[in-house]
Amino acid sequence: MRILILGGDGFCGWPTALYLSQQGHEVAILDNLSRRAWDDELGISSLTPIATLEQRVAAWQHVSEKRIALFIGDLTDFEIVRAAFEQFAPDAIVHFGEQRSAPYSMIDRQHAVFTQVNNVVGTLNVLYAMRDHAPQAHLIKLGTMGEYGTPNIAIEEGYITIEHEGRSDTLPFPKQPGSIYHLSKVHDSHNIFFACRIWGLRATDLNQGVVYNIGVEQTERDPALVNRFDYDEVFGTALNRFCAEAAAGHALTVYGAGGQTRGFIDIRDTVRCIELAALRPAEPGEMRVLNQFTEQFSVLDLAERVQSAARKLGLETTIAHLENPRVEQERHFYEAKHTKLLDLGLQPHLLNEATITGLLELAVRYRERIDLTRILPTVTWK
Amino acid sequence: MRILILGGDGFCGWPTALYLSQQGHEVAILDNLSRRAWDDELGISSLTPIATLEQRVAAWQHVSEKRIALFIGDLTDFEIVRAAFEQFAPDAIVHFGEQRSAPYSMIDRQHAVFTQVNNVVGTLNVLYAMRDHAPQAHLIKLGTMGEYGTPNIAIEEGYITIEHEGRSDTLPFPKQPGSIYHLSKVHDSHNIFFACRIWGLRATDLNQGVVYNIGVEQTERDPALVNRFDYDEVFGTALNRFCAEAAAGHALTVYGAGGQTRGFIDIRDTVRCIELAALRPAEPGEMRVLNQFTEQFSVLDLAERVQSAARKLGLETTIAHLENPRVEQERHFYEAKHTKLLDLGLQPHLLNEATITGLLELAVRYRERIDLTRILPTVTWK
Repeated sequence: MRILILGGDGFCGWPTALYLSQQGHEVAILDNLSRRAWDDELGISSLTPIATLEQRVAAWQHVSEKRIALFIGDLTDFEIVRAAFEQFAPDAIVHFGEQRSAPYSMIDRQHAVFTQVNNVVGTLNVLYAMRDHAPQAHLIKLGTMGEYGTPNIAIEEGYITIEHEGRSDTLPFPKQPGSIYHLSKVHDSHNIFFACRIWGLRATDLNQGVVYNIGVEQTERDPALVNRFDYDEVFGTALNRFCAEAAAGHALTVYGAGGQTRGFIDIRDTVRCIELAALRPAEPGEMRVLNQFTEQFSVLDLAERVQSAARKLGLETTIAHLENPRVEQERHFYEAKHTKLLDLGLQPHLLNEATITGLLELAVRYRERIDLTRILPTVTWK
Repeated sequence: MRILILGGDGFCGWPTALYLSQQGHEVAILDNLSRRAWDDELGISSLTPIATLEQRVAAWQHVSEKRIALFIGDLTDFEIVRAAFEQFAPDAIVHFGEQRSAPYSMIDRQHAVFTQVNNVVGTLNVLYAMRDHAPQAHLIKLGTMGEYGTPNIAIEEGYITIEHEGRSDTLPFPKQPGSIYHLSKVHDSHNIFFACRIWGLRATDLNQGVVYNIGVEQTERDPALVNRFDYDEVFGTALNRFCAEAAAGHALTVYGAGGQTRGFIDIRDTVRCIELAALRPAEPGEMRVLNQFTEQFSVLDLAERVQSAARKLGLETTIAHLENPRVEQERHFYEAKHTKLLDLGLQPHLLNEATITGLLELAVRYRERIDLTRILPTVTWK
């Protein structure tokens, strides 16, 4: 299968590219390297030293004898998108190519506008390129569980059947996203659903939970293949950030009470979910929605698990309940369905102490790279 | 009350500005004159000859001795928005300032991207200006009934209470909009809801039906005050377009079977609804949603009513069922609630033959201005 990976230089995109290449698929990456530019803008960097994209691809060719084609450019520039579609002729498009940090989108008005324009226009361009150049291709789009918010009913996978005044319909699940970034994903979902309904495109919208862990077997095969690992307040996600904090002797930064409950997924399952979706594409005209996570935890649960694993490594750490920079419920009902990827064959890597220990050891190894001044939250929702 | 009208030069905005000015409110208009630019771009023009915005405002001052302040600029330029908020200090912001044609948004990729960026960024800028410069002000935003699409259950006003697996929550009504334009309004609604939840802003989202008729009492008071009247395939809406077609001896252009059913509203009720919303603002933190229409009709119903009224004026006309340029259901269940504006005091102008006759007479008066080549649909959804 010919698979075009949009945003293939990022935290999820890079391991996905290698994994799919390893499985024998023809893989190309389209990326504008903006994730690196945002590091530069904010003065932060990956805990792990990462190679340039060109070095990465060369190293992969060296260890695997497999080639990954590169298109360097911006999804908001339609000519770039069109050229990639025409030259590569993808059967599947895996779309990670968006600004994916909630705090980044909440920095100020400019970052909010940038995030929504970047994500919405990029995805519109992909949809138009599919319509005109690859109408049979399958879009595999990364959404987020954060699109749903925290309703007081169980979250279904994309759609819900509503009985109302004696009638019934199955409709898109109502969305209450919690940041400008999460809103941009909701906008995408509506646009993609429209393109499927009107143009007969086929799409799978993967509403992914919070991703943890560092890489996959393929990213271990050469130092130049190592994945990025974010621990800062803007791009660091909860479990990874806690591990870096523990290694650096910083308190684990739980926002508020820590009862915020979310779906989580190991990055080894992320890449497998993408493959499963690609192998069993949506039907023409269908926007299939899958909730892509394997377990749900509260943020405080995770902090306590990291604290416990760290102690066994001789890392004593405390849990700090910071004033919550976000506006969100800190104690709430949360139950989200996630059986469809299991039905497709996913065998989850559930979170265990070995995984946390591995992350802690990684963080200890790179401890001197941790900038403690970039951990405490400065971006607030108010 | 100090009321800032965004898009106050357009079909709904201009009569609203005059009406609210007449009621004694302090009114300002912010407009970038883009509605006129789109006419120029497409080579179309209002059936009625309209004065420049400067002439309009001068004529209003002449007949009413009331002043309307003007801010000429684009909502996507934040400095314009900020300046207007700082200088005018609005108590209420009435937001008509968007690209509002579904066919325009479907012309091609560029028009699609333009429509979503224009509408979403403009509204984001308004929300940020409110947050920072007018946090107590009340946003009255024009949405559209088209946000809901045509679900197989009754459409509630913005929110629906869902019982699911023994639990219950009241959530945003699911949206299935039918064009890139309608999608942009759905994106706005999600963004506004977020701003209310997170920043405590107050907003009323008016999901308006298709507007017909030409003006209000105030637009009749001087020829320079006359409202625009669109009959072309891109900006003309069903009833108005049918009247122009009948006057020009053109068949009434019903798309497909004509069973498409929508909510409709007389523009005299539009301006009153805006006033009612302004007089009874939403609470801080609330996004109130009102469905702003008074009756529902199928498109074929309307064509037959126009045909009948035209015959009495000696205008024989036929009804042409064109191949539908849109992708939409042509026979479907449709029942939308619309009691909240009645509760606020709206006394509807229901559609009667006198109104249709008035529109036909207007169209006959300006018959020589009708360009028959711009009536048949050329913009298609596929």
